[in-house]
Amino acid sequence: MESVGIGLLGLGTVGGAVARRLIDEWELLGERAGATPALRCVAVRDTSRSRGFDLKNVRVVGDPQAVVADPAVAIVVEAIGGTDPATALIEAALRAGKTVVTANKAVIAASGPRLSALAAEHDAGLYFEASVGAGLPIIGLLRGSLLGDRIAALDCVINGTTNVILTQMRSAGVSYESALGDARRRGFAEADPSLDVDGWDAVHKLVILAWLAFGVHVAPDGVDRRGIRDVTGADVGALAQLGYRVRLLAHAERGSGDSVHLRVRPTAVGPGHLLHDVDDADNAVIISSDLEGTMMLRGLGAGGSSTASAVVSDVVTAVRERGTPVVNPAALTVPTMLGDADVEVAGYVRLQLSAEPEARALVLQALEDRGVAVDAAVDLTGSELIVLTGVAPRAVHDRALETLDTLTSVDQILGALDRVEA
Amino acid sequence: MESVGIGLLGLGTVGGAVARRLIDEWELLGERAGATPALRCVAVRDTSRSRGFDLKNVRVVGDPQAVVADPAVAIVVEAIGGTDPATALIEAALRAGKTVVTANKAVIAASGPRLSALAAEHDAGLYFEASVGAGLPIIGLLRGSLLGDRIAALDCVINGTTNVILTQMRSAGVSYESALGDARRRGFAEADPSLDVDGWDAVHKLVILAWLAFGVHVAPDGVDRRGIRDVTGADVGALAQLGYRVRLLAHAERGSGDSVHLRVRPTAVGPGHLLHDVDDADNAVIISSDLEGTMMLRGLGAGGSSTASAVVSDVVTAVRERGTPVVNPAALTVPTMLGDADVEVAGYVRLQLSAEPEARALVLQALEDRGVAVDAAVDLTGSELIVLTGVAPRAVHDRALETLDTLTSVDQILGALDRVEA
Repeated sequence: MESVGIGLLGLGTVGGAVARRLIDEWELLGERAGATPALRCVAVRDTSRSRGFDLKNVRVVGDPQAVVADPAVAIVVEAIGGTDPATALIEAALRAGKTVVTANKAVIAASGPRLSALAAEHDAGLYFEASVGAGLPIIGLLRGSLLGDRIAALDCVINGTTNVILTQMRSAGVSYESALGDARRRGFAEADPSLDVDGWDAVHKLVILAWLAFGVHVAPDGVDRRGIRDVTGADVGALAQLGYRVRLLAHAERGSGDSVHLRVRPTAVGPGHLLHDVDDADNAVIISSDLEGTMMLRGLGAGGSSTASAVVSDVVTAVRERGTPVVNPAALTVPTMLGDADVEVAGYVRLQLSAEPEARALVLQALEDRGVAVDAAVDLTGSELIVLTGVAPRAVHDRALETLDTLTSVDQILGALDRVEA
Repeated sequence: MESVGIGLLGLGTVGGAVARRLIDEWELLGERAGATPALRCVAVRDTSRSRGFDLKNVRVVGDPQAVVADPAVAIVVEAIGGTDPATALIEAALRAGKTVVTANKAVIAASGPRLSALAAEHDAGLYFEASVGAGLPIIGLLRGSLLGDRIAALDCVINGTTNVILTQMRSAGVSYESALGDARRRGFAEADPSLDVDGWDAVHKLVILAWLAFGVHVAPDGVDRRGIRDVTGADVGALAQLGYRVRLLAHAERGSGDSVHLRVRPTAVGPGHLLHDVDDADNAVIISSDLEGTMMLRGLGAGGSSTASAVVSDVVTAVRERGTPVVNPAALTVPTMLGDADVEVAGYVRLQLSAEPEARALVLQALEDRGVAVDAAVDLTGSELIVLTGVAPRAVHDRALETLDTLTSVDQILGALDRVEA
């Protein structure tokens, strides 16, 4: 059987798992691909380090550029992460007409459409299934299925770290800081967790999904983003009592014309909603489209083994599709971002009532007066009040909260979150 | 833009929805496909009937063979259902080098691998996304993703009719016959519901999924099949009290070597299991594989609109992939079916104890003596006893039940089902 040379950049958790699968299962993969993907060259930071498995006849180099330049390599697998030097290496490979497989969400979110056009220009492939949801094949699903549908919205839990933290806050009744420490100890959060807890990781993934679903490229900075640092144990606990679970919801929707809205925000998810019980490190993506309606893909969306699953699947696909013409990416429309007056959300507010007589009634009346319906109001001990607010433009919500903050009936607004129902 | 001629066999619910989408959205579909799929010819049973939408310049014929033979048609969409004459029409199209898109699960279950080989022989494509789970893109997922994984098992709810009936039996506390009548009135069950309630529809779909997941072709007759006619309201109700929901579970697993096991059986699904809350007409497929672990695809898996979603997506894919070489299907291994001694299941038994002293203890002892563990035993009124039995080979389970039936401690075995836990 013919073989196709594979070069691998990085031999960490993901790269190591990819190398092992390519070496151990070359026969199975070859059968599926129609030619054997043969690992020829690997770039590692420390060439002297032992790997715990036999790299056999694979050339091991310290300079990733040497892998890209190796004439025996037809497909470059990028598994080093970060934007620099990953972006330049991917560009160099594509310019050399080599197909690239990458798990790099930061690179694809920032430069996916440009790299995709570059790939087509040089008749090379660009595959990035692992960049969102790791082994969960959401990229393949958006690229290869639903081609007769108009996709209206995406609703996702696509960051494992924040979901592990929020799950722990609820189930153990602890604070954000405590749950973060626990996630760190269990290997679910990095020493510097900013990328995850500030929502950037979810933003990158959502930008990629929105690109494939809507044919628009939104800059990560253009996404309405709020992380989970300010989510309090009190809100998570109070919501749990009402049947809600707080998740970092990544949502994208298409408005009229070419307008879109992308947001990543902690959101209270109501009972019966498909995302309600997606706990811990599970990922889930809900796609709403006009013919199919609502579908969900759910499963493990992180970890070396899961990410390797997607990378190796991409390698097999790349080998399978070698020699077939690379399709030019669809022309991108320039997105108009929906304004806060057009984005409709429901909400959750927890506040401290003042001792003023009729404070509770005045608060609820003030909300209604400002165009925000009250779906439910729940009294907690100590004159705390929870209000579940109805769907209204975000701008209307925000103005109503500002008003509440000025009322003598309200001592303090203690927490506010978006809310979605089944 | 170049156009590719589409011929459509059948203009019922599915065919009509496909035709409407092809006509209304030709521009969008053309952008996605790289060439416009242009509906050229439609075969209907009654050419004089009005359709409620404008077929414009499409040629309408009474003889489906005329569509296949039409030189303007490059892709034949088969939407007439049943095996005869659908199989012969598909064969004729493939032999003429025309690509076929079909929603026909009976044809693909019986003849998928043979037709797939025939397609490759004539350099034609064969697409059948709609044959399982309608618009839920499970076929695309198994064909195009997880190519680096070894799939170990599939667990599916893939028949809407039985799930609607079983959901109604639980939520309304009614009998099978009553729930069937209700499903008929709501359009979820046909006048003759045998294909659904006897499990054949799920068997066909499972055979197709197992083909793609394991590379084996199991004849529908070779599947361990039990329908839902004998499921009693008493069992569904008693299980609901314990937190279980009964579903017609379609399960496929790979044993050692080339052995596989496929079964379709009513099964009690425990709390926390991914299939637990897949109620009504929802479909769901869980794939367990070695690198990715467990993933689930869930959504609407029936109906004209959902089925049309898959058919049109296949048409776009077929147009997109025109001119690229058709990959020969992987060589099929001849499956060995796992025997009842190797297939391990957990169970549920409801029985009527006799008035014999110590009857309850004797029953539980008899089970343990025959190698079946007792996970839990629950007493109902009227000396009924429920036993949740532990995982053991099916043969061991069956022999233990036969033994119970002979005991003087047991008046009658009232119900028995498989059981799965989270």
